[in-house]
Amino acid sequence: MKKPLILVTNDDGISAPGIRSLIDVMSEIGEVVVVAPDKPQSAMGHAITINNTLFLNKVSKSNAAITEYNCSGTPVDCVKLAVNEIFHRKPDLCVSGVNHGSNSSINVIYSGTMSAAVEAGIEGIPAIGFSLLDYEWDADFEPIKSFIKKITIETLTKGLPIGVVLNVNFPKLKEHEIKGIRICRQAKALWVEKFDKRKTPQGKDYYWLTGEFVNEDKGEDTDEWALANGYVSVVPVQFDMTAHHSIQHLNTWNLNEKN
Amino acid sequence: MKKPLILVTNDDGISAPGIRSLIDVMSEIGEVVVVAPDKPQSAMGHAITINNTLFLNKVSKSNAAITEYNCSGTPVDCVKLAVNEIFHRKPDLCVSGVNHGSNSSINVIYSGTMSAAVEAGIEGIPAIGFSLLDYEWDADFEPIKSFIKKITIETLTKGLPIGVVLNVNFPKLKEHEIKGIRICRQAKALWVEKFDKRKTPQGKDYYWLTGEFVNEDKGEDTDEWALANGYVSVVPVQFDMTAHHSIQHLNTWNLNEKN
Repeated sequence: MKKPLILVTNDDGISAPGIRSLIDVMSEIGEVVVVAPDKPQSAMGHAITINNTLFLNKVSKSNAAITEYNCSGTPVDCVKLAVNEIFHRKPDLCVSGVNHGSNSSINVIYSGTMSAAVEAGIEGIPAIGFSLLDYEWDADFEPIKSFIKKITIETLTKGLPIGVVLNVNFPKLKEHEIKGIRICRQAKALWVEKFDKRKTPQGKDYYWLTGEFVNEDKGEDTDEWALANGYVSVVPVQFDMTAHHSIQHLNTWNLNEKN
Repeated sequence: MKKPLILVTNDDGISAPGIRSLIDVMSEIGEVVVVAPDKPQSAMGHAITINNTLFLNKVSKSNAAITEYNCSGTPVDCVKLAVNEIFHRKPDLCVSGVNHGSNSSINVIYSGTMSAAVEAGIEGIPAIGFSLLDYEWDADFEPIKSFIKKITIETLTKGLPIGVVLNVNFPKLKEHEIKGIRICRQAKALWVEKFDKRKTPQGKDYYWLTGEFVNEDKGEDTDEWALANGYVSVVPVQFDMTAHHSIQHLNTWNLNEKN
C-alpha cells in the first residue's frame, strides 16, 4: 500500500519540541512534509495573512529524510501554502501540534493549532489537532506517542465524517497512568480575563492579557471531565457554526413587519 | 426606561466609515461606547494578544457625545478590554461592524468582525456582527441603517438564545431594493486559494494570498442564497464547535482496544 502523505504543522513554531515529537510518530505512518510557522503563533485563532507578504522557506537539506518548510504566516497560512504551492494536491492527512498547552473546551476557538486542523477540514482534508496539558518547553511527549499513533491510524483507516476534524487533548500523566481515550463534547467553559495593568517607563498605561479558566460545566461527557479524570479527550469539531436549533425560534421574530 | 449600554467595535479600525454608520444607528437606541482597533484587523479570526502588550487610548474629547477608545490589539482584545477595564460590567449589547465586505458563509470563521461578536457571546453578552457586501471604503451604508436598527431593537427586546450570536450580512442594494430579512444557515462554501507568487528585488520568492469564493451549496435556506436574492441574511452562530451528530459514530472506533 502506498504510504499516506501527511502534512504536519503547529502554532508553536517549527522548532518546538511538540512538533518534533509529532514528526517522529508520523514518520512511522507515512510520508511526512512539515510546513510550520517560523515563530510562535499561539492564540492566533483562524487568522490569515491578507495585508502582508508570505515567505515560505525550505529548511531541510536535500538529502534529509523529511522535507521541512517554515512560513512567515499563521498556522492557517501554512496549510493553504502547503496545499497550493508545495503539494498541488490534497494530502491524505493534516496533523497539527503537539501543542504545548491545552486546547480543550473553548480554547478550540482561540487556538492556532486547531485553526490549522479546521482549515484543512474546510479544504476537505482529514485533520487532527493534538495538544498536551503542559505549557513547558521541556514537556514530556513520550507518554502520548502511542495514543497519537493509534488515533492517527484509526482516522486514516476509518475516515472522518464530512465537515468534522478532531481536537485531541492529553492529560499530563505517565503513559501507564492514562486510562484510555474518550469521545467528548466541548465543555461550556470560558476564560475570565484579568488584565495586568502597567506603566511604560514614560508613564503610559499598558496591559498584559491574563485570565482564569472557569468551567462550570460538570458533564461527564465533556473534554474537561475526561482530562481531569485521566483520559485522552477527543472532540469532533465542526466548522458549520450555524446554531441550527435556534433558527425556528428566530423565525418568530418580527423582522419583516413594517413599523 | 434606562438606555441600554452598547459596546461598538469592528475589525476595519476605528476610523472606518462602516463603524461610523453603526455608531450613528446605535446612538438612536442607547448609550454608546466605542472600543475599536487603532488599525485594520481584518481576517484576524479569533486571535488574541498574549505575547505582546496592549494599549488602550481614549480618543474622544471629554465633552463628546460618545466615548471612544482605540486599542492596539485585535477585535477580541477590544471586547475583553472594554468589559474588564472600561465598563467593569457586561454591556447590554455588543455590535461589531459594519464590516466593509462579506462575512457570510465560511467567512464567519476568518472574520475579525464576527470574532468580536463571538467573544462577547462567550462572555454572556448579546452580540451582533454586521457586514455589507461592499469592500469599498466609500461603500454606502445609508440603505441598511433602518435594517440595523430593526434587528438591534428586536435583539434587545426579545433577547438571544443562550450561546448564540447573530451574523448579519447585507446585499449591496438600494434600500427599496432590499426584499426583507431572512433567518438562514451558513452556506457550505469555501475559498479556493490562489497565491500570487512574486520575487523581492533581491530575487527571493514571496506570496500574496488571494482566492476565489466557491459555493456549491444551492440550499435556499442559506445566507448565500438570501444575499444573492436581495435579502438581508441573519445566521445564528454558536461557539460550541462540537459536532454532536458524530459522537455516536466515533464511539464505534477501536480506540481503547489493546493492539
